[in-house]
Amino acid sequence: MKRIYLDYNATTPLTDGAKAALVTAFDSFGNPSSVHSEGRAAKALMQRARRQVAALVNADPENIVFTSGATEAAATLLTPDYFMGRTPLALSHLYFSATEHPCITAKGRFPAEKCSVIPVDGNGFVQPVVLQDILARHDKAKGLPLVAIQYANHETGVIQPIAELAAIVRQAGGLFIVDSVQYAGRKKLDITQNCGDFFILSAHKLGGPKGAGAFIAAGGLVMPGALITGGGQERGLRSGTQALPLIAAFGAAAADAQANLPDSERLAGLRNDIEAGIRKIAPDVLIHGEAAPRLPNTSYFTVPDIPAETLQIAFDLEGIAVSAGSACSSGKVSASPVLKAMGLENQGAVRLSSGWNTQSADIERFLTVFKNIMMRKK
Amino acid sequence: MKRIYLDYNATTPLTDGAKAALVTAFDSFGNPSSVHSEGRAAKALMQRARRQVAALVNADPENIVFTSGATEAAATLLTPDYFMGRTPLALSHLYFSATEHPCITAKGRFPAEKCSVIPVDGNGFVQPVVLQDILARHDKAKGLPLVAIQYANHETGVIQPIAELAAIVRQAGGLFIVDSVQYAGRKKLDITQNCGDFFILSAHKLGGPKGAGAFIAAGGLVMPGALITGGGQERGLRSGTQALPLIAAFGAAAADAQANLPDSERLAGLRNDIEAGIRKIAPDVLIHGEAAPRLPNTSYFTVPDIPAETLQIAFDLEGIAVSAGSACSSGKVSASPVLKAMGLENQGAVRLSSGWNTQSADIERFLTVFKNIMMRKK
Repeated sequence: MKRIYLDYNATTPLTDGAKAALVTAFDSFGNPSSVHSEGRAAKALMQRARRQVAALVNADPENIVFTSGATEAAATLLTPDYFMGRTPLALSHLYFSATEHPCITAKGRFPAEKCSVIPVDGNGFVQPVVLQDILARHDKAKGLPLVAIQYANHETGVIQPIAELAAIVRQAGGLFIVDSVQYAGRKKLDITQNCGDFFILSAHKLGGPKGAGAFIAAGGLVMPGALITGGGQERGLRSGTQALPLIAAFGAAAADAQANLPDSERLAGLRNDIEAGIRKIAPDVLIHGEAAPRLPNTSYFTVPDIPAETLQIAFDLEGIAVSAGSACSSGKVSASPVLKAMGLENQGAVRLSSGWNTQSADIERFLTVFKNIMMRKK
Repeated sequence: MKRIYLDYNATTPLTDGAKAALVTAFDSFGNPSSVHSEGRAAKALMQRARRQVAALVNADPENIVFTSGATEAAATLLTPDYFMGRTPLALSHLYFSATEHPCITAKGRFPAEKCSVIPVDGNGFVQPVVLQDILARHDKAKGLPLVAIQYANHETGVIQPIAELAAIVRQAGGLFIVDSVQYAGRKKLDITQNCGDFFILSAHKLGGPKGAGAFIAAGGLVMPGALITGGGQERGLRSGTQALPLIAAFGAAAADAQANLPDSERLAGLRNDIEAGIRKIAPDVLIHGEAAPRLPNTSYFTVPDIPAETLQIAFDLEGIAVSAGSACSSGKVSASPVLKAMGLENQGAVRLSSGWNTQSADIERFLTVFKNIMMRKK
């Protein structure tokens, strides 16, 4: 029996383009910093990948800094030490929303006492007025505020009103980091339109390989102090031999994701079908963030009295991969911090997240299996 | 005309095993932290890779921490903040040799005033008595010394007397980091035999892909504070989704390198042939580190009055990839800091570094081309 994978928010399969780019780059194995022919060929692959990733988000290719993934990108950006050219720029306090991914809540190079959490409402939104209020109390004499808010939540798929929040951060003279890991490639992202300063991407959430990511500066003036220093690659912002052919595959995946953006309407349709089907089978189901704008591919629901882990295991045994919460460190099972921030204490939930390989037949089978599981529970 | 690649110290092609592991892992795309079947399959691949890398250096698989490469591994280890279990352990001063790779000389999380350089002699050796002297002056009241010395130099291939140096560090109560990037896979490395505390590996220097590396603790008790925090992967020592299939390919490359260790005698023979040939063509050639124990695959030489970059370009045009110095950030050309540390100011040199695909016919062609270049120069 063919397995059905509904956990694209944890990681995606490689797109065909990404696979092809990986295999092609096997033979362009040079070090992109070497000046011989092999090195120059590798460098050309790097530059193409940079253009492809830039095109996905309408960025200047020069402002893309490749990292080993989103977590490293976040760890680099979350620092009190920024530079405008060579002039140091002090960021005195970090503000992040209560539903951020652990790579943000880990606080990077900020000590805990210089961090504050921005609460969210019952739909998972950062209310603009709440952000405004918090930044109004920021003590500018000590330095500028650094604000990190995700574009779309990894568990619920809820999309924040980023342009509105960005305007508030800008008015407060702060820098704004937008974790776009779950958003990019699923919805059109034009970084020139929403006024964030830095955007975080992960290759393996949009059809590329694990082990590659990037942070992208909307402008090129202000940059964080490097986290990983050494040979001076990526204009000194990230040392270490660049990860070709991974980065080539990241670029190809970005191009595939861009071409595939219109598919998001189909996925939204499947998502609506699945949620209608779930509600029919379990009328008391709670669909989190239902009233909010969400990613087209994500459903997050709690069936009262059935632990999410129980459902997950039942689905897995029937050949369907879903998630109970998000996939972080090795299989730890606990209440969702995202739901807690939304006011639901000690609540687990099942996350379904689809992607380009998901077909309506998969959704039908999911619903059949769900119905059977619920019958057995009675 | 088939190109000849003699720049294995910059980066290596993928071994057949590494290629196969990458392609196989394309279809095991799960997130190793997910608990469903796809996640568990990915985790099993991770564990196999951990065992394979451990076997190459005779380590406990549990003491391997995968990173995005050697530079990140170095940046993690070079910190004043270590922990013995949960008890903080302060390292007050960093000592590294004058010929270390830039990922070490960048000093990680140490401020410059807490770092000292250990000089090397004309052969590139750290003299044990010099290290002893420096550590005798270390002020233990402030904290323990942290010492970083490479096993083998990336430019000259000179091998340090690591066991002897390790004994001195141990006697001084310090921690000893051994950058084994160029050594591992080229010579047998048994980390239980030479008393270093931490070893750094890079996948792409031993037949694996760029974008994967590791640090390995000889014991499991003392560990550095994490550099990249977030989801808590790698036992909290390195957050971020683990880079499968890269890590699977790293494991396969380690297994290939281990099987291939006996080939080092053949490479040493080719190295001797090449150096004898070079000397015959250019009797005034300077072969750096010639009198010292060196890696079997590395030759580093200066032809008086001919800039290394000129030779490199000439070789490249004839289809042979060699390096002028080491390949670090994008094609910058400068005098070698390694040779400067060995007492040769403003000196460039050509590096030849061979590997498993290098054949004696390649060496013959190299020598023919070298002869032609030298004829034209006259």
